[in-house]
Amino acid sequence: MSYLKNITSPTLLLNEQICRKNIESMAAKAHRQGKELVPHFKTAQSHKVGEWTKEYGIRQITVSSIKMAEYFCNNGWENIHIAFPFNPLEVHKLNALAASQSISVQLINEAVTETLATNLSSTVGFFIEIDAGYGRTGVEVSDFGLIESILRIANKSDKLQFKGFYIHPGHTYYTEDKHKIYDESISALSMLKTKYSTEYPNLKTRVGDTPGCAAVDDFGDVDQIGPGNFVFYDMMQVNLGSCKIDEVAVALAVPVVDIKKDKKEILIHGGGVHLAKDVLLEPDGSKNFGEIVFLDENGWVIPLQRSYVKSISQEHGLIKASDELLSKVKVGDLLGILPIHSCMTADCMKRYMSLDGNWVDHTESGTSNLYDKI
Amino acid sequence: MSYLKNITSPTLLLNEQICRKNIESMAAKAHRQGKELVPHFKTAQSHKVGEWTKEYGIRQITVSSIKMAEYFCNNGWENIHIAFPFNPLEVHKLNALAASQSISVQLINEAVTETLATNLSSTVGFFIEIDAGYGRTGVEVSDFGLIESILRIANKSDKLQFKGFYIHPGHTYYTEDKHKIYDESISALSMLKTKYSTEYPNLKTRVGDTPGCAAVDDFGDVDQIGPGNFVFYDMMQVNLGSCKIDEVAVALAVPVVDIKKDKKEILIHGGGVHLAKDVLLEPDGSKNFGEIVFLDENGWVIPLQRSYVKSISQEHGLIKASDELLSKVKVGDLLGILPIHSCMTADCMKRYMSLDGNWVDHTESGTSNLYDKI
Repeated sequence: MSYLKNITSPTLLLNEQICRKNIESMAAKAHRQGKELVPHFKTAQSHKVGEWTKEYGIRQITVSSIKMAEYFCNNGWENIHIAFPFNPLEVHKLNALAASQSISVQLINEAVTETLATNLSSTVGFFIEIDAGYGRTGVEVSDFGLIESILRIANKSDKLQFKGFYIHPGHTYYTEDKHKIYDESISALSMLKTKYSTEYPNLKTRVGDTPGCAAVDDFGDVDQIGPGNFVFYDMMQVNLGSCKIDEVAVALAVPVVDIKKDKKEILIHGGGVHLAKDVLLEPDGSKNFGEIVFLDENGWVIPLQRSYVKSISQEHGLIKASDELLSKVKVGDLLGILPIHSCMTADCMKRYMSLDGNWVDHTESGTSNLYDKI
Repeated sequence: MSYLKNITSPTLLLNEQICRKNIESMAAKAHRQGKELVPHFKTAQSHKVGEWTKEYGIRQITVSSIKMAEYFCNNGWENIHIAFPFNPLEVHKLNALAASQSISVQLINEAVTETLATNLSSTVGFFIEIDAGYGRTGVEVSDFGLIESILRIANKSDKLQFKGFYIHPGHTYYTEDKHKIYDESISALSMLKTKYSTEYPNLKTRVGDTPGCAAVDDFGDVDQIGPGNFVFYDMMQVNLGSCKIDEVAVALAVPVVDIKKDKKEILIHGGGVHLAKDVLLEPDGSKNFGEIVFLDENGWVIPLQRSYVKSISQEHGLIKASDELLSKVKVGDLLGILPIHSCMTADCMKRYMSLDGNWVDHTESGTSNLYDKI
């Protein structure tokens, strides 16, 4: 029986075949370049997807919170890196995790380094996060005073072990020239590696975000790449040129509840609590909260004529519908929506349905329903 | 011990005293006007908050999905109305609920009315939703052909009982003149009541959204008002003039992880997965994802100088900080954020912490942790 028969309300579909291809392709790219791929699991947040990545050689992973680290702990990962400036209120939770799992964190200031140097009871690695111009977080690349102060404080503790430098060049999402941003990030990491490798011969450098890792072919002497979104991709990545539309691995299945042919509008049960509210702008300035696809037994098919979600509220979505869509769809059917930002949609939906009708886990739903039948 | 001592990661605080005042005030307004208040529970989505509303005379409630209706079923509500164009794929779930709970749904087309008329096994009430110009959903007020067609199909079934007309004038969120919008909605409902009350003498009319119900004092001959957000309010409602900033009943507590005094920026653990991505525009065109407050033993205090979250990503929030804030805050402290859209923030956070340190339930977390200590 088709997986579609079981769906009566908004459900996030995961196409394993596409997802595996995305993982395989990024792993092959890293391998060709002699880099280690350390994927960011904030996107899938899933043990099941994690198991797939292991088949393509992944041994270490990145997460963005201690809660997510707890979820992946003691599942065979050589190391779990928490790529977020460490929150000093969670030092006790960190100690609990680090007692049985190799963990690393990210440091960007003296205060938190001091807290860890004083309070760690288990060994924890750390990267210093460098801000290579994105401006969200990190030590400025030329601020050697702060870098050395962090290293000096960390050296007081035998529990805190320096692992290297990390850059998240998130401005690739907003800038045309991803190659220029990567050249700057790679140069910055290379300079830091040269400067500190005598004292720390094993230090690693890591750069990573999906638009950059998808576009760039030469990562210089960087040791590790750490993209996240590439396992699923989404319409934002299609828009940025990171992938093609048929490489998007997730689609939100939504029920059609009303059709207004004269207004070329289709109303669906699917809103901000399902898709999140990330948005792209169409060339005419209108908003796009997700791209419509047709669902079938094997997943989904891209329509010949484009339709998209033009407005959303908490539970409602209103589609600007093509003639093709209007001619094929009736009330009570299911449509698919390729999300604008798959990480956020997955976090809203909390689990996935595979195309064979099984549930796939997500941090937010916990492990209890892993592989459950509907 | 203060509730603050237990918080180490983003946590949504609920101030019961403010929340009760908001409920009491709207209930008193409805009472003065001789209207029944049927609050929309899509905001709090909580049994606990529901129990508070019962103390102010609330007997019937509204929800926005069958999932939410399931959550509130068989908890002493005289009726639960699902204020969403009914999704015909959920007719079996509806039958299951309606077997033990008085339920009503919303109808806007013939197709779904036909599905219900054919497949209902228990009695279900229905409102016809009228679009009074908002354009999201509903039958156009002058489309008597469609209204009568829905009524005719419904009359074939003794399980489907017409209850009246419902308008959600959501354009009050985007239009200065809320009174004009309400005049139009109230006139539309009044006209429909006059036209159909001979045949349906018990029909009720309902109008409701928070900006309108907060602003308007004369609801004419409308029978019921149905706002939702007013139980918590939020910065969008402050901005719309629906409430004062000290009437916002929820604040997201977030840990400070870095401070850049020279850039007047504070980095917090608190991003799109906690706040959602609703945004207000400041007068200078910059984005505001939430307003900063100081937390203390008794809840929160509005600073003398404004600070707000100027950018967010999945887990990060970056605050544009006032001198006052910079002078008082250090890494490892907690700050409060008044959300832009509290319904969405609550849905992301899935539960609340009361100021006495107890958890308060939300649909997304289920009932198991109701009243749990941390």
